Amino acid sequence: MIMHSWKDIPNNSDFSIYNIPFGVFSISGGSPRLASAIGDEIIDLKGVAATGIFDSLDINSRIWDADTLNPFISLGKSVTNKVRTLLQEHMCDPSSPLKGSNCFHPMSDVSMHMPVFVGDYTDFYSSIEHATNVGIMFRDPANALMPNWKHLPVGYHGRASSIVVSGTNITRPNGQTKPNDGPPIYGPSQRMDFELEMAFIIGKESNLGDQISTKQADDYIFGMVLFNDWSARDIQKWEYVPLGPFLGKSFGSTASPWIVTMEALSPFAVEGPIQDPEVLPYLTYSGLKNYDINLTVSLTPKDGQANVISTSNFKYMYWNMNQQLAHHTVNGCNVKVGDFMASGTISGKTPESYGSMLEIAWSGQKPITLKDGSQRKFINNYDTVTINGWCEKNSIRVGFGEVSGTILPAK
Amino acid sequence: MIMHSWKDIPNNSDFSIYNIPFGVFSISGGSPRLASAIGDEIIDLKGVAATGIFDSLDINSRIWDADTLNPFISLGKSVTNKVRTLLQEHMCDPSSPLKGSNCFHPMSDVSMHMPVFVGDYTDFYSSIEHATNVGIMFRDPANALMPNWKHLPVGYHGRASSIVVSGTNITRPNGQTKPNDGPPIYGPSQRMDFELEMAFIIGKESNLGDQISTKQADDYIFGMVLFNDWSARDIQKWEYVPLGPFLGKSFGSTASPWIVTMEALSPFAVEGPIQDPEVLPYLTYSGLKNYDINLTVSLTPKDGQANVISTSNFKYMYWNMNQQLAHHTVNGCNVKVGDFMASGTISGKTPESYGSMLEIAWSGQKPITLKDGSQRKFINNYDTVTINGWCEKNSIRVGFGEVSGTILPAK
Repeated sequence: MIMHSWKDIPNNSDFSIYNIPFGVFSISGGSPRLASAIGDEIIDLKGVAATGIFDSLDINSRIWDADTLNPFISLGKSVTNKVRTLLQEHMCDPSSPLKGSNCFHPMSDVSMHMPVFVGDYTDFYSSIEHATNVGIMFRDPANALMPNWKHLPVGYHGRASSIVVSGTNITRPNGQTKPNDGPPIYGPSQRMDFELEMAFIIGKESNLGDQISTKQADDYIFGMVLFNDWSARDIQKWEYVPLGPFLGKSFGSTASPWIVTMEALSPFAVEGPIQDPEVLPYLTYSGLKNYDINLTVSLTPKDGQANVISTSNFKYMYWNMNQQLAHHTVNGCNVKVGDFMASGTISGKTPESYGSMLEIAWSGQKPITLKDGSQRKFINNYDTVTINGWCEKNSIRVGFGEVSGTILPAK
Repeated sequence: MIMHSWKDIPNNSDFSIYNIPFGVFSISGGSPRLASAIGDEIIDLKGVAATGIFDSLDINSRIWDADTLNPFISLGKSVTNKVRTLLQEHMCDPSSPLKGSNCFHPMSDVSMHMPVFVGDYTDFYSSIEHATNVGIMFRDPANALMPNWKHLPVGYHGRASSIVVSGTNITRPNGQTKPNDGPPIYGPSQRMDFELEMAFIIGKESNLGDQISTKQADDYIFGMVLFNDWSARDIQKWEYVPLGPFLGKSFGSTASPWIVTMEALSPFAVEGPIQDPEVLPYLTYSGLKNYDINLTVSLTPKDGQANVISTSNFKYMYWNMNQQLAHHTVNGCNVKVGDFMASGTISGKTPESYGSMLEIAWSGQKPITLKDGSQRKFINNYDTVTINGWCEKNSIRVGFGEVSGTILPAK
């Protein structure tokens, strides 16, 4: 369906009338509260609610004043989808009370906050190219992919407390690393990396002991964000055997502020790769469950120009979100509204599409040269890493904006 | 200091006048609220506060009505320690308004709840005997202990949402496992296990980017509970490479309801093992940081008798809690009030002191025989596993009560 808004929306905007994402903003030092976005502006949902356009939904007014989306999302898709479509209708209706209202603020005037409180954060490892590349570098080139990898979406629990919103500086971590020729040492990580990821946000609670099937999963996945799972490769390499990554990750992960709903992403659903060997019945699925989401990563040195260092796509994922959630809950593990489930690094087949410096510069063996002539094997202090993501089809664009973070020197 | 309470306290009670732990209870279907314990009774802290004995501390009365201890613990040790010592003084003073008050209820009349909301849960792996035993069985007997193990307290992130309070039934998980001679299969875990652990609870928030030294750690550790980190060994074995345990653990973990404060445990502090090789400076510590806590595990078949299957002690831990917290935050990872930090399975040197069925029955090779003549390699349906823990010295006893759970058949 073609929609035309009475609002001027730049043609290349991620926040077209087809998007209508959800987030949390504050303005002029006020308390955080809920927002949507259109073009270059945010939409103050408390203000919108005051116009009465949501009255038929009977939503407690405190929902709009909350400092996270968790209570809003907990209303369920039957309500949140109506909020979204009502916003779309009113943004297209020149006689809407929204027109001429004071519900809009330029994005440049507001601060964005973490969109949800994250109870638990899980990181999957679902790009076959990434898993293969890391396997070659960290372990055995002849057996890069572990025997379990094609049978189940490998994942692990991450640290929820250190997930921060785009724009938050990240301090280079100190920690323990092991030189090849000597005992372990303490100091700042020398192999600071980003990971190009996306995450989905749980929209519905399940009970301990219950499974969520790949079919039911649609009901539990509220939307998605861009995600940078910063990684200190030297710390990770020394610590991760046998229980997995820990301090090499938990110093910080960065999320984009706008949750784009699955309903906004549905026109961009595509087929996934053929899974061979065949998966067990609980991991089978029907329908289009991959998404054609363009992704780029740029690295900007201090006071310098942006350099696009990766061009990838979310559709490369071997395991889809429905499979991830069905696997996560097959043992009865419960999920809560606001839980983050990240994809793992998204790498394509070619070096141009790799999703981490570890892969792009091949563990330091193939440094890249930036526009200013400087080289990078990993991320330097004061470098800013920015991930952008957007879908585009038939002149319709739905995007995520960006997730960005600057590395500060270790303390 | 010798204390005598005017209340009759059984001699062998875990909840002597020297303990005064904190927990959350409800009675007759009412709302959960805060409690302490003495002998066989709980102490309703809202009722105690109403007598005025805490008035000088100027505590917001809603604290006592909260359904978790998080707000109370957030007041800081300067307040919570005074609450504890005031309770001790009044329980010894025959003229206290508590005497004759209706603040006490038999433990048998109340329900206990999760004592805190757990934001993040970390599981360490700090028993050298356990790590060695698992290394022999899961990996390579010749190199059972990984090269990093003696240099840092290995740990990983666990699932917070599925931590439940003692007495909650645990459903045997379904999942994917790999027979030796064929492709992976789906079904109920055939190797259901317990893990004898203890956990400490964070009492003070830190900021992202800040480190907590081993010395500062005392200020951040509020108290401890008993912890059963249920494990499905067959699921774990297939899934855990390379990112660590996931669904083999996340179907449920069980915590005891009473948090025993570090102040109550301080008389039982003992020296830890000699750490050789020497640890890096950030992991050095001074003072007595291990604790002499007796631990037993019993297995009770349906309608059967309890069988003590392990007798261990928390003092066996190679890495202490101060080292664990200093390591956890060396990279700037932030902690929040209520975070759980579990010890990892606590095994002693002899089979009688092993902390899991995996070790006790040596991966099924040495089944144990129960009093009723039945054998166990792992945990059967309807078996109840109960962990008890207590300190005792100079006729003074401070204990944790128990953490108990029954395994129900897979769905």
